[in-house]
Formats: sequence, structure tokens, C-alpha cells
Amino acid sequence: MKPYAFGIDIGGTTVKCGFFNSDGTFVEKWEIPTRKEDDGAMILPDIAEAIKAKLAEHGVSMDDVEGIGVGVPGPVLDDGVVNGCVNLGWGVFNVAEKLSGLLGDVPVQVGNDANVAALGEQWLGGGKGFKNVVMVTLGTGVGGGIIIGGKILAGSHGAGGEIGHIQMRKNETAVCGCGKKGCLEQYASATGIVRMSKILLEKDKNDSSLRSLAEITSKDIFDAAKTGDALSLKLVDTLGEMLGTALAHITAVVDPDVIVIGGGVSKAGQILLDAIEKHYRPVAFHACRSTQFKLAVLGNDAGMYGAVRMVLNR
Amino acid sequence: MKPYAFGIDIGGTTVKCGFFNSDGTFVEKWEIPTRKEDDGAMILPDIAEAIKAKLAEHGVSMDDVEGIGVGVPGPVLDDGVVNGCVNLGWGVFNVAEKLSGLLGDVPVQVGNDANVAALGEQWLGGGKGFKNVVMVTLGTGVGGGIIIGGKILAGSHGAGGEIGHIQMRKNETAVCGCGKKGCLEQYASATGIVRMSKILLEKDKNDSSLRSLAEITSKDIFDAAKTGDALSLKLVDTLGEMLGTALAHITAVVDPDVIVIGGGVSKAGQILLDAIEKHYRPVAFHACRSTQFKLAVLGNDAGMYGAVRMVLNR
Repeated sequence: MKPYAFGIDIGGTTVKCGFFNSDGTFVEKWEIPTRKEDDGAMILPDIAEAIKAKLAEHGVSMDDVEGIGVGVPGPVLDDGVVNGCVNLGWGVFNVAEKLSGLLGDVPVQVGNDANVAALGEQWLGGGKGFKNVVMVTLGTGVGGGIIIGGKILAGSHGAGGEIGHIQMRKNETAVCGCGKKGCLEQYASATGIVRMSKILLEKDKNDSSLRSLAEITSKDIFDAAKTGDALSLKLVDTLGEMLGTALAHITAVVDPDVIVIGGGVSKAGQILLDAIEKHYRPVAFHACRSTQFKLAVLGNDAGMYGAVRMVLNR
Repeated sequence: MKPYAFGIDIGGTTVKCGFFNSDGTFVEKWEIPTRKEDDGAMILPDIAEAIKAKLAEHGVSMDDVEGIGVGVPGPVLDDGVVNGCVNLGWGVFNVAEKLSGLLGDVPVQVGNDANVAALGEQWLGGGKGFKNVVMVTLGTGVGGGIIIGGKILAGSHGAGGEIGHIQMRKNETAVCGCGKKGCLEQYASATGIVRMSKILLEKDKNDSSLRSLAEITSKDIFDAAKTGDALSLKLVDTLGEMLGTALAHITAVVDPDVIVIGGGVSKAGQILLDAIEKHYRPVAFHACRSTQFKLAVLGNDAGMYGAVRMVLNR
């Protein structure tokens, strides 16, 4: 294996760039802005220039680069074709081929950002030491990534691990961002628990420390729950019920060693895991009932780690 | 590759044996009884003897056998360890090692019977030409098998594809064979639809051709539905709702090319696919909304095909 590799995580605002030794340790990490003008036409050339400049800075030749792994916020097929990224302005094209062409045909592997973050956590984070991992990312939405035998399950339409859109309630009237009603994301994301808090504060007339807040965040709800606020505990329990039930569905299908919970909401810590596990264990298939739950540990670096892992573990 | 291989499908009553050319065509298929006495201690020796006799009959040496694939009715780990088979009287042991030892250390691969049948259908049946397949087997229970990139997703506890135990109803009072309540299997299996018919015939006072039957089978229900019997149509619709919803959960996780429906209930044909698809499409994640549904085509031979495929596609 060649001594160096890059892990690139393209987000809607910045591109996180990691220059790695091929043992998975950082040489350096840095960020560049994501230029979304002209349908994101400059994003890949910007990345190519950044990589060339970094190599020059360190006096390293492209011949010493094993490859470049890239995470993108959209569906990705196995061959590196991205099936449109609304956030970047991208349509359908082969990102792997394009970036490789800009960098002297160096090998490029592309994955969906949630899947790539899952791979990072499986490799060096909350799922370290396990080969089959389900990762759930609780942020603005609910993302997911499935790692089987140390590889990303990308799916036939790049929709592998899109667990945020499992329908959890048939009688929901609010519409999810995906157009359906009753998606897991509507209850178990940062946005979802805040949405649920508004409904509950309206319906439940009991006192709650949440009522004094001008604007409620998911952190506020978990903080209040930790101090014993009954209404907040109820909200956390509902999130746990939705996620625990959905995860029981998921483990009956892919039966992982471990479930890793990440994203901003996971900063709530043990109270979150407890709420999920409480509802997961009774409904999980018996062989999966004792599947471990772990918190993610790599934070915002998970994408870079997972991206570089794709080229180091082809 | 060596010119021959065996595919063995161990059932509770008979062991289906397939002697294959390594291109996947049968030389011959036959059955032997499954001797379950003494905790199933004779099952593997019986299979070993049957294989030796078949080779002698055809004048073929064990040196010309690429390997032996075996499907067993219980959870199987990647290394060939079977985690107990209640139906066979087996506890936990390495079936691959044991059978290989009885046959001069020929390579043996072992898989769960539902997973192996899914692999057979993916290779040469309803999923032919696709690499990512979800197979559902609707028989006495609801079995499932997930094929990703042409390989079985066995899972960390041998529970990959155990989709019959996804919880579909939280308010169910009847208990599933697994000990939980509200499992897919309680609604979508042959037993499940018959169970539901009894409940509906009690509750719904309208006329139905089912009322004239001394004992109702799932075939009776589908046959009556095909003639327009309203109550039977309702039962088929409920089965479709349960299975369609569960499959929407499943495709959001593994995103297959195709969903193959097999098992005895699938003999109902298009009416079954229509009922499932009607409920699947509106709740499926948009990228998976047009995922194809197909009927299984290999019938009882799927297990033998899938078993031999494990050794021909290692």
C-alpha cells in the first residue's frame, strides 16, 4: 500500500479534508468552503486544487497516494455515480471518475456521507472491533449507515441505511421533508423532538421548565429531562420508543454486532441510550435482544475517517 | 474450479440432496429422511454416506468436488457454527467442520435455510440478474433472506433476514411463536392469514364462501378472494398491508434491486403481489418506491440451488 491517502467529507457549507498516513493517522486536517454557485461546478476542482497544494506543501508526490475517499450528501451508487445532491446543486454524474480525472487518475471511492460516517465509526469509533454495525445519526434529520463485514451497504439506488424514512406512525398528519407522513425522522431527530415538544406543551397543561424558554432546542429538552422535568422525560421517552422500535425492525433485517448512535442529539449521552434501549429490548427479535448500543466518538471527523477507509480497505 | 459440487437442504422431515455440475446444472437430485433421534446425531453422517454413495454410483472422486453447501433450519454464523436447530434436535456446533471432517476435509459452507433459498432465487430464480435481493418466504411462518452483492447477509447472531419477527402491531394480544406479540408472521404467513380469517369471520357478519368450509386454508382464502368474496379480499388486503409496510421498512435499510416473494402462500400469484405493492408503494422511501416485486420460481429446489451456490461463489 502507498504511504498516504485523503479522506474528504463534502458538506453544504464546508468541505472537510483529511490528509492521512495509510495507517489511518492524520498528517493534517483542514477545511475549504463549499462553493455551491453554478450548480456546484467548482466543488470538485476546488478539492483537486486543495489536494495538489497539500501534497506540494508536504513535498509528497501523487504517486505516493493510495487513493481519495469522498463522502457526499446524497445517494451514491457502488460505481461512484451520485444520484443528485440537492444541497450542492449537483445532478446525476460519476463523482469518482470526475475527481480522479482531475488528479491524474488516482483511485477515488465515493460514498454517501451518512454511510461514510458509519464506516468511520465502525473502523475507529463507537463500533471499533466489530464488523457489522448499524449507525444512526440524530441531527436535523435522522441518517443511517449500515456496515456489513466492514463494508458500506450502499443499496441499489444509493438508499441503503435511509432509516430516517421508515414509517412509524400511520395516523400522522404532519408531512416529513420526504413528502411522506409518519417517518422516524419526524420524531427522533433534533427537529422532531422540538416539534413534538410544541405539540405536547400545547396539549399537556402541567408545569415544565421548557415553558420559560423563548425557543426550545433538543438540548434544552434533554437537559430538562436530566433535572427530572416530567414533560421533557415524556418527550425523551417518545423519542426512545420511536427509535427503539425502528431499531428492532432494523436489527431483525441486518443483525449487527453493535448499534452506534451519533449526531448532535447523541451529545445527550446515557439518558438517550437508556430511552432507546428501554423500548428496543422488549420488541427486538430474541437473537438480537442483547445487541450492544454505543455512542459515536469521532464527532465531525467520522466522515473523513470513513472516506479514507474506503480507499484503504477496498 | 472442480467439476462437481453438492447442495444439501436439511429440512425437518427430509434432506434434499443435489449433485451439481459446477455450472449449476443438476447431475441428479434425491431425498433422504431426516433422522432426528439422538438429538439429530445421525443427520450429518447420513448426509456424508449419501454423498459418498452418489459419487461411487457416478464413478466420481471426492477430489473432483469443489465443495458442499448446506442449508439448515436455524441460525448460522459466518464460520459455519449453527446456533441450535430446535427442529433437528441440534445444539450449538460447527456444522461445516463436522461434515467436512466426515468427507475427507472437502470445503463445506453452511447457511440458514431461508437465507440459502434467497441465494438460490437470486442466482437462478426470481432474482436472477440482480445482485441485491430481499426474499420473503410465506409459509407456516414468514422467513426472509437478504442477498447483498450476491452474498448472504448472515448477521452477527445468524439472525440476518429474520423479518417475520418485525413488530407490526403494538396492540396485539395473541402471542407469536417467538414469544413476542404483533410479529409480521402473525398476519402474513399461511397460519397468520388463517388466524386472521377466524377473527374476521367472528366479527364480520356478512356472507362469505369461507363460512361453508370445515377447515380454512390460506389457499381457500386466496381462491375465494379471486372469485370476489369480499371478506377474503379484506383478509388478503390486510396481509398486503402488513407485508407491504414491513417491506417498506426493509427496503429503507437494505435498498435491494428486487423483492422476491416465495413459499406456499406465493402460489396465489399476482393477487398477492398486487396486495403487497398497493400498500408498499405509498410508504416506501422515494428512491425505493419502484423497486420490483417478483414471484419465486425455484420452489422447493431453491434451497439446494442456494446451498451449492455458496461453494461455487466463495
